[in-house]
Amino acid sequence: MKSAIKNRELVPESEAVVPVSIREVFFNFSVYESIKVLKGAAVFLEDHLGRLFDSAHRLEIPNPFKCEEIADLVYKLIHHDAIDRATLRIQLIGGSSPMLFIFYTDLPHYPIEYYRDGIRVITYEGERVIPEVKSTSLLLNYVALREAARRDAFEALLVDRWECSIEGTRSNVFALQGNTLITAGAGVLAGVTRKHIIESAKKIGLKVDYTCLRVHDLKGKEYDEVFISSTSMGAMPVSHIDGICISRDFEKTLRIHELVRNLEREYVDARTVQ
Amino acid sequence: MKSAIKNRELVPESEAVVPVSIREVFFNFSVYESIKVLKGAAVFLEDHLGRLFDSAHRLEIPNPFKCEEIADLVYKLIHHDAIDRATLRIQLIGGSSPMLFIFYTDLPHYPIEYYRDGIRVITYEGERVIPEVKSTSLLLNYVALREAARRDAFEALLVDRWECSIEGTRSNVFALQGNTLITAGAGVLAGVTRKHIIESAKKIGLKVDYTCLRVHDLKGKEYDEVFISSTSMGAMPVSHIDGICISRDFEKTLRIHELVRNLEREYVDARTVQ
Repeated sequence: MKSAIKNRELVPESEAVVPVSIREVFFNFSVYESIKVLKGAAVFLEDHLGRLFDSAHRLEIPNPFKCEEIADLVYKLIHHDAIDRATLRIQLIGGSSPMLFIFYTDLPHYPIEYYRDGIRVITYEGERVIPEVKSTSLLLNYVALREAARRDAFEALLVDRWECSIEGTRSNVFALQGNTLITAGAGVLAGVTRKHIIESAKKIGLKVDYTCLRVHDLKGKEYDEVFISSTSMGAMPVSHIDGICISRDFEKTLRIHELVRNLEREYVDARTVQ
Repeated sequence: MKSAIKNRELVPESEAVVPVSIREVFFNFSVYESIKVLKGAAVFLEDHLGRLFDSAHRLEIPNPFKCEEIADLVYKLIHHDAIDRATLRIQLIGGSSPMLFIFYTDLPHYPIEYYRDGIRVITYEGERVIPEVKSTSLLLNYVALREAARRDAFEALLVDRWECSIEGTRSNVFALQGNTLITAGAGVLAGVTRKHIIESAKKIGLKVDYTCLRVHDLKGKEYDEVFISSTSMGAMPVSHIDGICISRDFEKTLRIHELVRNLEREYVDARTVQ
């Protein structure tokens, strides 16, 4: 039986519940993080907790939980359930008595072909509310990803009012042209993997151009390579947008991907050696 | 102790809970209705259930509950808890096993001065996701209404990308000019009270112009009267937007309000005589 953390207690997962009638539950006044667990290590936990606290701060969710306290609760759950690999979710719900939950699901498995051949994505019109914040206001993401699955695609790129795509339903969006990595600057979620991608790109001598990516340019093959990123995906190359083949060359994307995975391995090794 | 409905069962309200780890709970894949209960009658229940089913249909939430079944459950709760006056919430959460909840809170009380003097509203930039659907994706509404309260205002009008306001955080928006009632047509939530307002306006000889209201015009005193509407408010006159006095004359608004309240009373009388 799986366990979970509810506030400061370890409970059976079935007891990690919220009353629907609490206003903050009903209004989705809540922020979260998804963290990869590898060999029992919560990868880049400090970065994720930093962003969780930033999201809570931006929404002015009063947060009675300390960073170290949440980190301890994360490892309490990992050790109790002997979790080796998983996606861990930390959710903080606002209100007069903020509630903290930590629970986990299977780590998604992406076939090697996704990285070799690239993936198919669709475009989907819509903007997440307060995109700088990782909130559970995810209705748009739910319906956009469902539409992607129906059209046999792996992800949906959300298209904003300016015809740009700053994010997918569970990813950040990047393009490569010559020696430049291009990605949105302002108004975008400060992805933890995004940060590592930018670092890795600089390591291989790329410049970074913080510009919004226009869907017209993405579909018009204006870029050498296009990829999406997330904690679970790393850097995943995109071959098709709305059925249009945009690239078959993923060389730089895969070099970045390898460097990001190395950072992950280094983190896990340092943590498991301790 | 208050009760609630969870799926088809009457339970103590404390047991109307959802596991946070269910994907549809986490992603807010859920629709709802707020219904006024007066003298134990769920006012315009049929209209609200019609809209609930429409919202579920638009989001493609598979809905195993029948309309009559939900109506019976509503009255099961009203009778069990001997509810005289309340705001009742019906929430339907999607997924492979959709969940139905019915619970209630106090009916808000609005002082008579609100109708006599008008209320203050602020404007707040943002668009609800899929505004035609009454979903619980309400983070924007939460933060906008909080900002209104901080600025001593009763409501926040959401301002969309076209600088128009089609809705407040819990209301529809209307203006009156000469013999015309003006309100957004497309892309707007089909408010139950909105429908009665349009009916009532026609009764007093007004034409209806379905046009989006521009914030610039609302604040620029381009209209004789401006008001907002909801199930609990009826038609509530607006005196100030962002601190600017836009009107002191609420004559037509209050005539419409009275007609809407009459429709409510007629519904309640018909129901309680049965």
